[in-house]
Amino acid sequence: MIPPRTLRIESGETTRTIYVIGTELRVQLNRCAPSQCKFFSIKCNPTVQFRVEAGASAASVAMATPAGGSFLSPQLLTKNTVVFISMKLASELVNDSKLSVRFYGNKSELLGNAVLHLTAVEISLDIDADRDGIVERNNPNKASWKWGPNGHGAILLVNCDCESTFRKELDSEDEEITRVSDLKDMSKMILRTRGPAVLPEGYKLSLHISRSHAESVRVFRTSGKPQGSTLKYLLFKLFQKDYPLVLNKEQLAGEVPYVGGDSQQELFVEGIRFPDKDFDGLITINLSLLEPSGQGFPETPIYTDKVMFRVAPWIMTPNTLKPVEVFVCSTSDNYDFLKAIKSLVQSSGYKLKICHEYMNRGDRWMQDEIEFGYIDSPHQRIPVVLDSPRDRELEDFPYDVLLGPDFGYVTRYPVNERVSSLDSFGNLEVSPPVTVNGKKYPLGRIIIGVAFPTTAHGRNMTKVIQDFLWAQKVQEPIALYSDWLVVGHVDEFMTFVPAPDRKGFRLLLASPDAGYKLFRSLQVKGHGSAKLFQGKEEEISVDELMSNEEFRAENVYVQNCIDWNRDILKKELGLDDEDIIDLPILFKVFSEEDNRAAAYYPDMVNMLVLGKNLGIPKPFGPQVRGTCALEAEMRSLLEPLGLNCTFIDDFASYHKLLGEVHCGSNVRREPFEFRWWNLE
Amino acid sequence: MIPPRTLRIESGETTRTIYVIGTELRVQLNRCAPSQCKFFSIKCNPTVQFRVEAGASAASVAMATPAGGSFLSPQLLTKNTVVFISMKLASELVNDSKLSVRFYGNKSELLGNAVLHLTAVEISLDIDADRDGIVERNNPNKASWKWGPNGHGAILLVNCDCESTFRKELDSEDEEITRVSDLKDMSKMILRTRGPAVLPEGYKLSLHISRSHAESVRVFRTSGKPQGSTLKYLLFKLFQKDYPLVLNKEQLAGEVPYVGGDSQQELFVEGIRFPDKDFDGLITINLSLLEPSGQGFPETPIYTDKVMFRVAPWIMTPNTLKPVEVFVCSTSDNYDFLKAIKSLVQSSGYKLKICHEYMNRGDRWMQDEIEFGYIDSPHQRIPVVLDSPRDRELEDFPYDVLLGPDFGYVTRYPVNERVSSLDSFGNLEVSPPVTVNGKKYPLGRIIIGVAFPTTAHGRNMTKVIQDFLWAQKVQEPIALYSDWLVVGHVDEFMTFVPAPDRKGFRLLLASPDAGYKLFRSLQVKGHGSAKLFQGKEEEISVDELMSNEEFRAENVYVQNCIDWNRDILKKELGLDDEDIIDLPILFKVFSEEDNRAAAYYPDMVNMLVLGKNLGIPKPFGPQVRGTCALEAEMRSLLEPLGLNCTFIDDFASYHKLLGEVHCGSNVRREPFEFRWWNLE
Ligand SMILES: [Ca+2]
Ligand SMILES: [Ca+2]
Ligand SMILES: [Ca+2]
Ligand SMILES: [Ca+2]
Repeated sequence: MIPPRTLRIESGETTRTIYVIGTELRVQLNRCAPSQCKFFSIKCNPTVQFRVEAGASAASVAMATPAGGSFLSPQLLTKNTVVFISMKLASELVNDSKLSVRFYGNKSELLGNAVLHLTAVEISLDIDADRDGIVERNNPNKASWKWGPNGHGAILLVNCDCESTFRKELDSEDEEITRVSDLKDMSKMILRTRGPAVLPEGYKLSLHISRSHAESVRVFRTSGKPQGSTLKYLLFKLFQKDYPLVLNKEQLAGEVPYVGGDSQQELFVEGIRFPDKDFDGLITINLSLLEPSGQGFPETPIYTDKVMFRVAPWIMTPNTLKPVEVFVCSTSDNYDFLKAIKSLVQSSGYKLKICHEYMNRGDRWMQDEIEFGYIDSPHQRIPVVLDSPRDRELEDFPYDVLLGPDFGYVTRYPVNERVSSLDSFGNLEVSPPVTVNGKKYPLGRIIIGVAFPTTAHGRNMTKVIQDFLWAQKVQEPIALYSDWLVVGHVDEFMTFVPAPDRKGFRLLLASPDAGYKLFRSLQVKGHGSAKLFQGKEEEISVDELMSNEEFRAENVYVQNCIDWNRDILKKELGLDDEDIIDLPILFKVFSEEDNRAAAYYPDMVNMLVLGKNLGIPKPFGPQVRGTCALEAEMRSLLEPLGLNCTFIDDFASYHKLLGEVHCGSNVRREPFEFRWWNLE
Repeated sequence: MIPPRTLRIESGETTRTIYVIGTELRVQLNRCAPSQCKFFSIKCNPTVQFRVEAGASAASVAMATPAGGSFLSPQLLTKNTVVFISMKLASELVNDSKLSVRFYGNKSELLGNAVLHLTAVEISLDIDADRDGIVERNNPNKASWKWGPNGHGAILLVNCDCESTFRKELDSEDEEITRVSDLKDMSKMILRTRGPAVLPEGYKLSLHISRSHAESVRVFRTSGKPQGSTLKYLLFKLFQKDYPLVLNKEQLAGEVPYVGGDSQQELFVEGIRFPDKDFDGLITINLSLLEPSGQGFPETPIYTDKVMFRVAPWIMTPNTLKPVEVFVCSTSDNYDFLKAIKSLVQSSGYKLKICHEYMNRGDRWMQDEIEFGYIDSPHQRIPVVLDSPRDRELEDFPYDVLLGPDFGYVTRYPVNERVSSLDSFGNLEVSPPVTVNGKKYPLGRIIIGVAFPTTAHGRNMTKVIQDFLWAQKVQEPIALYSDWLVVGHVDEFMTFVPAPDRKGFRLLLASPDAGYKLFRSLQVKGHGSAKLFQGKEEEISVDELMSNEEFRAENVYVQNCIDWNRDILKKELGLDDEDIIDLPILFKVFSEEDNRAAAYYPDMVNMLVLGKNLGIPKPFGPQVRGTCALEAEMRSLLEPLGLNCTFIDDFASYHKLLGEVHCGSNVRREPFEFRWWNLE
């Protein structure tokens, strides 16, 4: 309920104002009455309604509502007599409705007459507050935002794609709308008005926004072209001037024209900033009706309507979502790898996109430069790539190749901080949907790797990226400990694969213990002389490996590091032991790398997950009766879940460079069916 | 419930670890068993408890708990057999508790034996989470914060006073504790431990904090002096080195010594930043037990305890609170004013503090340079002055004079913004406690004045001050429209006075309508020739004044401006008309000042409120039978509320300089009885 607006009228004078349907005007009669006045009467058009209250000390007393719409016989005037005025229908002409108050003295002699001329208008700034893609009329919840399927509140996208493929620039950095296709990335707002052909002189409609919100949004309006041809315009016209800018960070208030009669003006709201540490994502846009206050005085806002948007978060896609495209680099030395990936991707029925050498400049770590995600709203959904501040030779790829029409781009630049290996996005993953102690995460939880918080000198993911990830809110991040690894990425010891049972997935963890267990049992079964890395210079027998006490101690340490993460993951994802599969993987600690570790043989957990088809680094484990014991163990662990294991030789081109299949690939996946605003 | 910690043991080896009381250790037996193992048995000291779970596909199955505390007969080993180990009492000696697991093969032949040596310790980082001033033991809610009388969570003060009166520096800017008196401004944290005289080699206790929280807090510890003499220390010793710094923004992790036996170590937490736009006031401090991981590897946190604080907000005090001291400036031309104020303050029973000319350098606007408030916690409460960025000749007064032991200071510096007259704190006021549509504001609401949000060129209060005020949260601000005034302060048209009835107060508003009504009735009663400003050069008769049509139009405009604010105040404070008193005050619009207004005669609403005694600018209104009609009207409006009106002549020394009594004074008041953390 909008509180009544105080209006002054005056004996002997005519006052003119606009009345906005749904509000009340409040006139303190004693104020405008002549000082000797004792009684009053009120007369008005049938289009005008009023009620009179005579304030008592404790409560207000309503006087009987007059029968014919007017108070023709004189009523007693008290110190607190207040008239509340309202109207039901918009005016067709300016000042077409009237109310007059007569003031009487002691013996009912007429002392004066105050006349009020009213023009009624209907004004509503409308948005899609019920999230069905249609801008409904005057939703009662339009000024607030509530999460959940029973929630409400409109949604805004950051216009982070680029309509043009030529001379690229993020649309969000362009202060104009240069292509009609850009409108679909914006949220429509409709200004619905009803009233006379023109407003009384000096009245204006003004959109406005607070200084802090203006950093995150722009508003455009449609020029006054006839409505009937809108569609034609959208399709055919070059229309730069058809969508004038109304609000941006320099212009916090801007006039919108009043169109007479029953009118709907389209406005377009463009998000320009993702939620972040200093921005909770909520934006309020105001529309005020301004009344002239006379020569040289500022206009007074006499009615304000508000709407609220939330900027859509950037959302990551876990391995359990269906792939769309697989990205991989072509380098001078990875022909066989590429062939194997191509075969896997094509037989799985997905698209393969190869980043060629002129673009990757020898940088093969496609996982590390980018993370694919998307933004979603009831009116539009587009993929958005998060560009890592890592910025090695692949640095131009996300902007130059991926960014384009309906493909968004976002990045963050570190401030007073050095970028480390932990800023590569092999260190940024996301879990499948989970429920933890009753709390649902239907979009999963983001997983990053950092140093122990108790360490003064560890490596970390930069603050700007961490702040960005936490601020998205819908996939509350989990920080694991990955600084124990030379490269330091969480994908070196964990991944998720789909499963038909339980929670719909399994967490796969690298496990030196599982590795030792497997090799010891090979020894017991008489295969101690079987060789790992057969035919390579690294060739070594199981017995030799198992007798290395230093290596054993290193793997105990690594297992402790992974167990620490295992406990965190169980707690933060609500997992049981049965949700986790320990993969037999051994690590080596490099003293020259500050005692940090890397996979000893190809790190099988660092795999490419394409539905049920897994592209796993070929481990070159001990050959037992013509079969690699590690591959056999992997199959026995994963095939019961309906997963198909394809082992891909990445030994020379990736493993020896401290990465594997996952590090060297990236997958764009379909978005969640679950819509983020339905989170509770 | 803390999730169990995964622990590795190994057949043929002895593992040693620390067990923290209240946790569980979790050993996956299958992992450490020899590969041919089929059965196991467990034996342990009576100080150790364990249970065994054999994970089934759907749920875990607990095996019968062994009778004598041990599982002496061999049990079947499954893939998911897990042993959970716990202890009830702290160890007196290192490794004084043992558990061993025997592994058997097919025919129960012994394959190996894994031995675990345990040292149990009790660790709790404690704070005053129940807000009674005492640091209780291990409050279950200590890691979170909840508002309200049924809430919980400890409280931290910004150490914004200065223990020293000589060579002043804010205590919060000092990285050391140099005076024992400073400890009472900090929140005590107690590290309670119980265990053997020393920890096993390599184990450490570490306090740590996140990077973003470290900007807002410091932690000190007590040096290891014997506990018995603590009080003696606190009273008599110069102890700079007795309180070593553990955490600050450069040092995010710091070791705290382990003291053997049953020990309580005191730690002191110092807030250094008020809540603000980028700081919600919540701070988490962590304590971890670190386990050595072997040569060259980082230590692993195996147990972490957390506590949460909220930094106390800065709170303003409304006119309805009891005054403590009144501040006023002495200038070369305000002798009579000062005398009148002195008489009022002393007869009201309060202290008067005069700021002399060497300090005020002619700047008489004591209201504008500062706003008094306070900060509150269960352990300490001190007044805190907010220093305005206005910074005219009084600028050194708050720091040089007010700041001191138990008197805090805070300010904000504008960034890329020009300070305007709206940054003076006559434009910063606070309402008495109110309830608005059921929502309680037991500390009232802050009131500031700004330009219309629809105006592009208005003056505003600087963003840094607005952000600061909004971030305090407990007195949610209301923005009024004050830019229509030359000076632009809310105290030019409104104030609050105590009242015995209704909501405990009245809102007083300047009202040109009430002024015109009074003067017109004087005319009707035959006093049209009575003179305002009698004997002064401004002298004018009521008739002359009332016949000035331009002046009338200006006052209609001013009334509209005030009515706009009246509607906002009614809505945001939940007021009825009966809660408001309209005071007869006329304004004049100055075209050379961008058509802004100032009070025509001394602005009676700009008063000093000292309990029931009001110091009101003497209006110099028309004399009717020897009495000033404006003073008479004020008395008739205010005396029925039990208020005493003293009219103070501020004409030459304040009114002519565009200020009045309130602008020229300031009052430090007693804090609210209501404690801010009880807000809901
Ligand atoms: Ca676009
Ligand atoms: Ca990734
Ligand atoms: Ca102090
Ligand atoms: Ca003030």
